[in-house]
Amino acid sequence: MTLSEKQTIDNKAYIVDLASLYAQELVNEVLPFWVKNSPDSVNGGFFTCLDASGKVFDTDKFMWLQGRQVWCLSYMYHHLKPEQQWLDMAIQGADFMLKHGRDNEGNWYFSLDQMGRPLVQPYNIFSDCFATMALAALDRVCPGKGYGEVAVETFDNIIARRQNPKGAYNKNYPGTRPMRNFSLPMILCNLALELEHVIGSDAVNAFIPEVLHEVMDIFYQPELGVILENVAEDGSLVDSFDGRLLNPGHAIEAMWFVMDIGHRIGNKKLIAQATQIMLNTLQKGWDNEYGGIFYFLDLHGHPPQQLEWDQKLWWVHVETLVALAKGYQYTGNQDCLRWFMKVHEYSWQHFRDDKNGGEWYGYLNRQGEVLLHLKGGKWKGCFHVPRALYQIATTFNPRVFNRP
Amino acid sequence: MTLSEKQTIDNKAYIVDLASLYAQELVNEVLPFWVKNSPDSVNGGFFTCLDASGKVFDTDKFMWLQGRQVWCLSYMYHHLKPEQQWLDMAIQGADFMLKHGRDNEGNWYFSLDQMGRPLVQPYNIFSDCFATMALAALDRVCPGKGYGEVAVETFDNIIARRQNPKGAYNKNYPGTRPMRNFSLPMILCNLALELEHVIGSDAVNAFIPEVLHEVMDIFYQPELGVILENVAEDGSLVDSFDGRLLNPGHAIEAMWFVMDIGHRIGNKKLIAQATQIMLNTLQKGWDNEYGGIFYFLDLHGHPPQQLEWDQKLWWVHVETLVALAKGYQYTGNQDCLRWFMKVHEYSWQHFRDDKNGGEWYGYLNRQGEVLLHLKGGKWKGCFHVPRALYQIATTFNPRVFNRP
Repeated sequence: MTLSEKQTIDNKAYIVDLASLYAQELVNEVLPFWVKNSPDSVNGGFFTCLDASGKVFDTDKFMWLQGRQVWCLSYMYHHLKPEQQWLDMAIQGADFMLKHGRDNEGNWYFSLDQMGRPLVQPYNIFSDCFATMALAALDRVCPGKGYGEVAVETFDNIIARRQNPKGAYNKNYPGTRPMRNFSLPMILCNLALELEHVIGSDAVNAFIPEVLHEVMDIFYQPELGVILENVAEDGSLVDSFDGRLLNPGHAIEAMWFVMDIGHRIGNKKLIAQATQIMLNTLQKGWDNEYGGIFYFLDLHGHPPQQLEWDQKLWWVHVETLVALAKGYQYTGNQDCLRWFMKVHEYSWQHFRDDKNGGEWYGYLNRQGEVLLHLKGGKWKGCFHVPRALYQIATTFNPRVFNRP
Repeated sequence: MTLSEKQTIDNKAYIVDLASLYAQELVNEVLPFWVKNSPDSVNGGFFTCLDASGKVFDTDKFMWLQGRQVWCLSYMYHHLKPEQQWLDMAIQGADFMLKHGRDNEGNWYFSLDQMGRPLVQPYNIFSDCFATMALAALDRVCPGKGYGEVAVETFDNIIARRQNPKGAYNKNYPGTRPMRNFSLPMILCNLALELEHVIGSDAVNAFIPEVLHEVMDIFYQPELGVILENVAEDGSLVDSFDGRLLNPGHAIEAMWFVMDIGHRIGNKKLIAQATQIMLNTLQKGWDNEYGGIFYFLDLHGHPPQQLEWDQKLWWVHVETLVALAKGYQYTGNQDCLRWFMKVHEYSWQHFRDDKNGGEWYGYLNRQGEVLLHLKGGKWKGCFHVPRALYQIATTFNPRVFNRP
């Protein structure tokens, strides 16, 4: 389906076609790629460093991606269809994680070698976030095996480490310029809803106002119209490299988490606000010269310290598509649909691998050419593309996966 | 002087013209840029985040660059000409460093704010390397003020921390996959000669065989013809992202350090070997499609984990020019001169800022377009460009700075 040919984009049939397109891509291309190429049948867990054809080019196991794949397979088993192979694979991944993934304090390592021996210490709390997300999702489809208990323990540990998530690995000198980073509050917005069946609705209800406050009152800057990636303790702008940093993909992804929270708590105003922030961010982050969304920008237009600032990354684009689809469905805002078309065309043209099929490419240069010929790596696994395809398909047509 | 017009590149007059070109660029453009725009006359030390016109866009002070600028000004005062302004500026920079730069154990912070308050802890030993280099160079032109003593103390501290330079900030799990990194041995090759007047010739003579062994026997891989950026404890290849990493600029820069050591100890075979390794690395690192030298490559051609792998960086190119100039002068190898022409043309065309003059740009995309419109930043200061211009000018004509 080439979408640029369409004259009238705002019609029901067209949206339903889009839903089918995303559903088919998920079921026929992306999930089979990971199921076929990723499992390590010798040691357990998943290989994620896969080249364009799916061949393993590096055997290290990165805990973010182990957790994310267990989550994805469990989620698809629950929501898409009860495919036994997906469940078996999620279980073997979780068992590898539980056997090798934690230090003596229960913190999740950053990476292991293929045998499961620890390589990089738990310097980073996001391994824990994706582990808890994984084990909670698996617990829902495979209850009574203890996965939920470890999910809750890990979640409690995240909350306890929340004020200083890097612990002893924090390189900042205390006190000179204390700053808060957006990543954890953003992930907690999503985690809150993901964990509901293990921590209970009351805990989620109590947690939501807190994470919403952090995202919408601390990191969102109404007078600037943007979400900053790092702010002072009181949420104000710090005029430094970190303080001026914009990460449009992060802000946009967070806005669909907030829309989902708004939907859950029945707050239309919040949904409308998140939609507007998302559209502003997209406008600001869009590369008018070559198309696509920049990875990083400096609020004041100074050179960012990230050398990869002008690259176009898969997760930024697919999460933007999710945010636009949800923004449209929740609010009916036509700008969401217009932008969806634009980002859809860019993404399908540049990230999708028409030659080999399977998972999408992840890293493009500013001009939109493939920069790294990989489908998975140290930071890219079975997560953003399948999750986004599922979210978009079911947002546009909740019955898309119901067979006749 | 446009060099592509030259028919015969191998002649004495031409080399002398090149020497003048590099000398003039140093004296008329690059040094004045830093002298004019960089000093912080209020708090001391240097601003290094300077835009294309020299305007300060960020005020943080990065210790690598504070040290490097003190070194550069002291070095130029000693070797180029005794310009009082350079010495005064070096002294004010060193005094700022000594007042604010160290923690209670004498380790040098990574960065300070403009007032000198510590921002980032001493997680990285290279602040110490450039501090010792700076203070030793200043001690030579301003003896008896205690600069040399701190240089020696810092050097002793580097040697003591050498086996685990990141200390508590080392994120690797001990024992699973121990690896050695090339950066420190490489810098020690240069530091050994830089410190001779403070640590004495006997210490340098004792130190040289050790650093040479590390670079040429441990990191250099004769069967592969390359220097690896990270190796196993015994110098063997580790098939992982870090183990497969090639950093052509690092390897090439190290080879001119080794040539200088070879010159000092009268070892022509060593010079010839370093020249050959440098040429092999350059051949491997050159981008045949767009010109310029890649920042990172994977030994096996897999996708590197560094997203900036295909960018063209100033220091890689100017250090390559130094290595080629020295290789030619020490050995007469005509390949060095042919390559010099090619890298010279690329560098002057792409890194030099013909519009604003002054310091060169630092970061280009693969296509050779300026990626960050800055002259200095978090990692780029008054160091590689002026040092290289000086080295090239005086290598091609040792009398280039002698006025009539």
